Amino acid sequence: MERIAYLLVTVVAVAVVVASLAPKSGYANEEAAPIFGIKISPGYRDWKLISVAHEEGNLNDLRAILGNDAATKAYREGKLPFPDGTIIARIAWSYVPSEENNKVFGRPQSFVPGPAPDWYLQFMVKDSKKYAATGGWGFAQFNKDGKPADGAMHKTCFPCHEPAKASDFVFTHYAP
Amino acid sequence: MERIAYLLVTVVAVAVVVASLAPKSGYANEEAAPIFGIKISPGYRDWKLISVAHEEGNLNDLRAILGNDAATKAYREGKLPFPDGTIIARIAWSYVPSEENNKVFGRPQSFVPGPAPDWYLQFMVKDSKKYAATGGWGFAQFNKDGKPADGAMHKTCFPCHEPAKASDFVFTHYAP
Repeated sequence: MERIAYLLVTVVAVAVVVASLAPKSGYANEEAAPIFGIKISPGYRDWKLISVAHEEGNLNDLRAILGNDAATKAYREGKLPFPDGTIIARIAWSYVPSEENNKVFGRPQSFVPGPAPDWYLQFMVKDSKKYAATGGWGFAQFNKDGKPADGAMHKTCFPCHEPAKASDFVFTHYAP
Repeated sequence: MERIAYLLVTVVAVAVVVASLAPKSGYANEEAAPIFGIKISPGYRDWKLISVAHEEGNLNDLRAILGNDAATKAYREGKLPFPDGTIIARIAWSYVPSEENNKVFGRPQSFVPGPAPDWYLQFMVKDSKKYAATGGWGFAQFNKDGKPADGAMHKTCFPCHEPAKASDFVFTHYAP
């Protein structure tokens, strides 16, 4: 029995070490975004897919919305408001035609992620006490180098999200 | 020490039970796709995001490409060919304007996932022996009810993917 115990202790210890080596944000200089003090969430690129979208106009991007476990659970159960601890990540790429795909289709029809725009990465972090003044949400935007946008930009986040009050200030719906 | 051993055995046992309760495909009738004999991969909706795309023309969809652990690892390490065991899932939703978002933007610019099209779900499964005749890949397409497309449709998969031979017959690149 003791040998099993040692074996299991080893297994658990290895698991802990492996977990601590899980992907981090990948950014060397992890500067917090102004106003809300939010840093890039470690491992966000491993989170589950909530939805996708295409924004035309000045944005002209393709985007994916990912959620941490709390976000994904709340979305899948259709529970509002989102619980404290929810983090929603939004990655955007410029919207470019795929010449490779279009050659196969025989016509221009395929659009894929191109270079990262300045509004590459955004987070919404739910903390109903800390962010009580902004609907319980903190907001953060980073460029592809992990550098946060300025304070003036971050002041525009909540006013833009306010019309989505009925869905707890979140625009994105879950794509089944 | 024995108590620790019992505790750890219990922890491991609980972990095994929890793992076996992980999300399955969610389809009651799991019919295999013709020719390649592929079923809907359990838990595919929990896989990591590889990329997103918009297809115009007859398809007119927004799509997300997800990968199992083998696929994600190979993509992130830039390793070709993909190893046996790789599974790539492609989910498509019809491409619809978001009236809710457009009201906030003040102009029509936001496109989001709408109802599922007939080509809702596709899989590419790597098994270099089993699928040697089709570049090592098996292909499968299902509608939103989990019903596979017919044999004639599945015969068109590999010929369409053949031009992508340089990237191991896979069109999608990883979106960083």
